Amino acid sequence: MNQLRNKCAIVGIGETDYLVNSGRSPLGLALQAIQLAIEDAGLAVDQIDGIVKSSIDASASDQIIAANLGLKNVTYTSEVTGLGGAACATIGQAAMAVASGLANYVVVYRAFTPFDFMEGAKHNQTTLWARQGGAGDFLRPFGWSAMIDGFAMHCQRHMHEYGTTTRQLGAIAVAARKYAAANPKSIRKTPITLEDHENSKVITWPLRELDCLISANDGACAFIVTSAERAKDLKQRPAKIMAAAQSLGANPMATWEMSAFKPVITDSEAQVVAPKLYRMAGLGPQDIDVAQVYDCFTYTQLVLLEDYGFCKKGEGGAFVEDGGIELGGELPVNTHGGHLGEAYIHGFTHITEGVKQMRGTSTSQVDGAETTLIASAVPGPTSALILGR
Amino acid sequence: MNQLRNKCAIVGIGETDYLVNSGRSPLGLALQAIQLAIEDAGLAVDQIDGIVKSSIDASASDQIIAANLGLKNVTYTSEVTGLGGAACATIGQAAMAVASGLANYVVVYRAFTPFDFMEGAKHNQTTLWARQGGAGDFLRPFGWSAMIDGFAMHCQRHMHEYGTTTRQLGAIAVAARKYAAANPKSIRKTPITLEDHENSKVITWPLRELDCLISANDGACAFIVTSAERAKDLKQRPAKIMAAAQSLGANPMATWEMSAFKPVITDSEAQVVAPKLYRMAGLGPQDIDVAQVYDCFTYTQLVLLEDYGFCKKGEGGAFVEDGGIELGGELPVNTHGGHLGEAYIHGFTHITEGVKQMRGTSTSQVDGAETTLIASAVPGPTSALILGR
Repeated sequence: MNQLRNKCAIVGIGETDYLVNSGRSPLGLALQAIQLAIEDAGLAVDQIDGIVKSSIDASASDQIIAANLGLKNVTYTSEVTGLGGAACATIGQAAMAVASGLANYVVVYRAFTPFDFMEGAKHNQTTLWARQGGAGDFLRPFGWSAMIDGFAMHCQRHMHEYGTTTRQLGAIAVAARKYAAANPKSIRKTPITLEDHENSKVITWPLRELDCLISANDGACAFIVTSAERAKDLKQRPAKIMAAAQSLGANPMATWEMSAFKPVITDSEAQVVAPKLYRMAGLGPQDIDVAQVYDCFTYTQLVLLEDYGFCKKGEGGAFVEDGGIELGGELPVNTHGGHLGEAYIHGFTHITEGVKQMRGTSTSQVDGAETTLIASAVPGPTSALILGR
Repeated sequence: MNQLRNKCAIVGIGETDYLVNSGRSPLGLALQAIQLAIEDAGLAVDQIDGIVKSSIDASASDQIIAANLGLKNVTYTSEVTGLGGAACATIGQAAMAVASGLANYVVVYRAFTPFDFMEGAKHNQTTLWARQGGAGDFLRPFGWSAMIDGFAMHCQRHMHEYGTTTRQLGAIAVAARKYAAANPKSIRKTPITLEDHENSKVITWPLRELDCLISANDGACAFIVTSAERAKDLKQRPAKIMAAAQSLGANPMATWEMSAFKPVITDSEAQVVAPKLYRMAGLGPQDIDVAQVYDCFTYTQLVLLEDYGFCKKGEGGAFVEDGGIELGGELPVNTHGGHLGEAYIHGFTHITEGVKQMRGTSTSQVDGAETTLIASAVPGPTSALILGR
């Protein structure tokens, strides 16, 4: 389980501006982010010999990416299936390729525009899903029509089971917007109060407008992964990959649509990933200094904090309130502003922020942070990373 | 480069019947092949904890495969982009995952029906390609309308450059059909003569009907990859994975469509893969006892034999004629009958046959075969394996 521990590092990060209705093509965004990441690492473009992406990324095939960059020696390419849950797994893939000697400098990227999300999703989820008889066909006629509806039902159950309050969800939104306000890359630049949250429009009870991600923006993130050995000679302080883990969960059909049929809907697939991840890193939740946790909705973050063991199951509400996840709190979370405040690139911005924290360059830097846990989306197939300084 | 050498093995193979217009669903075919492979390895279904597939496989997402099999502990999934060139790379991926400790028993599968090929291709090639401005738009109006047209042009050039003859192509077809006739799984069960080949209808000069693959059949192949250590305790003699390599080539856009624009159209991406592959295995072409080489057209096999160094460039014609690739010849090739005789599962049947040769169970067994090279499709991104006994 620990063959990968500290073998590799993220040595370059690149990100475009995060924009709304920019009109930019996903291919252009991807190429810009990749070039920035290569530059950031201090590499020459033609040193890149591996490409990993999310299978839902519709910016271009790896061939087109390689052709546009002029790469002539790509010896490794792969994709990770899945929606927001696949983000961290792409870094794990790249680390594996490097550790196995199949490539030396692997670029991982994700470009996102709302149009492409739908194109990618059409193939990877809806098309395949529907052909096999997707749950959507049965759920939608009864009002379960948007992604938020599933999350809202889970959240209601969490409130019923554990006494979680909407004010506690509000604490997550408030923290995210405070971090976002300090981050010049953020789309949502203004902080909010608990009262703003409580007064915001209900979308699907109990989730309000201010519980929701920035759902339609354009941008791209890219990363360069190489060996810990090679990382020493490069420009940036490397973010060591201490652990990478992935899981389809015990109920592989349980994506956001199908999650209604899980035995306990307040549990997530992170419960499977967490022990593997910590064992690989040789760490426990108490050793994590800062966390970057998927937050398409405030509730998602709350469940992930529980399921990665930062508090007991059901105690997420108490954990996040009163500034527990803000700078100076017990565990600063989503110090970039997350999908609630900065931008939504399907879990990849959390990786960027994790690297920044390990470099000491976050706009909300946690003093002396030595480790960060990064968690991709649930419910459904998920993945996670632990990075170290 | 040799971190993977002999670390893993293929310990199970499964294949459905190969049928024409069976009406069977790709999901059903995939599940049958996977279950047969698990049984063949002597494993229990719930020991499978990894899934790797071709990104063009449209049978189902890995979640649906896992759900149908009842897998509750899948900790690794990935896809390899590409058409026929991706086949061997999927086994490399699986080996990497096992060697890195991310999974213990990885299933690799490929289901194929003509309908699904088009569905998968639509997303992975045509859709993405066309959106970025695919070459097809420029080539098709000038008569380059089917896949064979590109291969035919390359072949014409090879004939012009090196004096290769259609009778030499015929020798490949004759050998394939002889092997296929000995293999009860074959779709084309009758042998042919050089004269049959010369008299068969020209499709695109110089390629005739009998130079062409079985283009429309239904079936699936599956494989189980585990560590060499664990392989010792299993039911079958393991086929050791001595080397696995992959490349997008020096011209990453050069798929069959774009290959017209390569500087030398008789060269293939296998020239990039070959040195890496042999270095990883610590072997050279002279050490290979039997080869399984992609053969969508006879010409493809000829070029691959040259580019993996079994003869000098341009001498493929002389190498294959007079029974050089038949049983008892210098290098038996495609002992199952290949895509020309047995069935067309996009390069995966060649892996199945490679494993059979290492087990000693081929219907055209090469006596004392200790090593086999398996080569996936060119032109375009390609991959290869060396398996050992």
